[in-house]
Amino acid sequence: MILTVTPNLAMDITYRLDELKVGATNRVRRVDARAGGKGVNVARVLRSLGADALVTGLVGGATGRAAVDELDRAGIAHQLTPIAGETRKTVTCMSEVDGDATIINEPGPAVTEREWDDLCTRVRDLAVAADIVVLSGSLPPGAPVDGYVQLVELAAAQGIPALLDSSGGALAEGLAARPAIVKPNLTELTALTGESDPAVAARTVRQRFGCAVVASLGSAGLLADTDEGVFLARPPEVVRGNPIGAGDACVAAVASGIAEHSLWRQRIAHAVALSAAAVRCPLAGDVDLDYYRAHREHITVEVTP
Amino acid sequence: MILTVTPNLAMDITYRLDELKVGATNRVRRVDARAGGKGVNVARVLRSLGADALVTGLVGGATGRAAVDELDRAGIAHQLTPIAGETRKTVTCMSEVDGDATIINEPGPAVTEREWDDLCTRVRDLAVAADIVVLSGSLPPGAPVDGYVQLVELAAAQGIPALLDSSGGALAEGLAARPAIVKPNLTELTALTGESDPAVAARTVRQRFGCAVVASLGSAGLLADTDEGVFLARPPEVVRGNPIGAGDACVAAVASGIAEHSLWRQRIAHAVALSAAAVRCPLAGDVDLDYYRAHREHITVEVTP
Repeated sequence: MILTVTPNLAMDITYRLDELKVGATNRVRRVDARAGGKGVNVARVLRSLGADALVTGLVGGATGRAAVDELDRAGIAHQLTPIAGETRKTVTCMSEVDGDATIINEPGPAVTEREWDDLCTRVRDLAVAADIVVLSGSLPPGAPVDGYVQLVELAAAQGIPALLDSSGGALAEGLAARPAIVKPNLTELTALTGESDPAVAARTVRQRFGCAVVASLGSAGLLADTDEGVFLARPPEVVRGNPIGAGDACVAAVASGIAEHSLWRQRIAHAVALSAAAVRCPLAGDVDLDYYRAHREHITVEVTP
Repeated sequence: MILTVTPNLAMDITYRLDELKVGATNRVRRVDARAGGKGVNVARVLRSLGADALVTGLVGGATGRAAVDELDRAGIAHQLTPIAGETRKTVTCMSEVDGDATIINEPGPAVTEREWDDLCTRVRDLAVAADIVVLSGSLPPGAPVDGYVQLVELAAAQGIPALLDSSGGALAEGLAARPAIVKPNLTELTALTGESDPAVAARTVRQRFGCAVVASLGSAGLLADTDEGVFLARPPEVVRGNPIGAGDACVAAVASGIAEHSLWRQRIAHAVALSAAAVRCPLAGDVDLDYYRAHREHITVEVTP
């Protein structure tokens, strides 16, 4: 089982409209609403692949109830921890004129120390049965800045590897606990190391924190610096669409590769194919499975010595 | 009692952020969420004035539950009709850099014929005890295009005056039922009559549909064409702020004037002062009561013969 932890779980609202005009009244053509946050997206992708995923995180208020209802409808297994605050919403406005995505993120609920401790207890109890614990996204206001250190260590204490996919301070702090895998994008890699060359930056992170580094390079593909070597995988072709869920699809592929004990070379090939399959879908958490199956065995992976 | 009917009731979400950038990820500083739709705003203003207001309309889904919870917390009396669809949200992004308001409106739930009939029955039952029925805002998808004709006639059958504040087809159709009062803005007046001069346009509407016309002219004030004469009231001063709730405050003042049998000259003076008091508040439905009380007796009202 793959346990995904989303401390700052969200209700993701996607609006499709002609064009978003600042300072004007804009009419939405179509509304999609689903539970989100990176870890929920990862679990949704895993469920499409037929993998066994379980979602945990913090939820509260009317928006939290709406998120739980949606998880139930989507058949995504969850064991969530209640909080007094209101689960955040994210609003994505997709312009049908130019394909622009404008994202508006609420900060998330203020979490108390007690609620955070409840989440840690929940993760500790659920990690026992997990092959890997995926720690995804931002920490909500009030969560300790070293929140991911606590969660990585809870997993490690039970011999379970953790994959960390966050940004900013939550990522920088969390690395100190030496998760098994970290998945930064290029901006995060550069922020962590001050290096603009992704290969140098990835090597620096791996040497400094002892974790495998899977770095997403956008349309250039994925770079993985691991104890089985350094791999560079390129997407099957230039795929146009919605890049928002690509990173979560990558994490889903890597996590399921860990659960299946596959080799890194295969994991990263699957990850690049699954990311491309996510870009083809308008909503984060969805993947074009036919596209994934048609391409996953034909990804070019370069090995750097 | 003033009955306000909001067929396309909403949950109004207000985001304060530095600046809304299209195509980027925007972080929200502060979130305010409250029940909305024009009729709810009118009732909220009436409640601040100490007037007896009752809200009805259609609500459904998780967003509908959130709206009902908020009405309860705000102490706004309501008797709503449940629907299977999901109540819409409106999102207003207030830029703190330049004061721009960007509004993103969901279309609203698809309403069935049965649900619309339930609302009509509800309005008929509640109108008995009302001094005036206020009909506000858009009609949700699925509602009959002559929805406001039905509601005006239900009120008229019981001898209760109706005030109609809508736009587009819902307004144009609804006028055929000859509501007692209509409150268009300048754009709507011109669309209805093809006339750009507000005085001529207002007279045309009053002659054609036999209703008093209260036209909001933005920062230029209010024009009322009534059976007591034609009045032009100007705001006490140029008030900067959020114009979104000004029209609803105007409707609240006119409706409470009707309930109190005041003269049109006083109604329109109060309406212009209350609109200015609404502009001073960042959220629609709020009014600066001190400002209103300080100015309402000092509004200049010109009488046109």
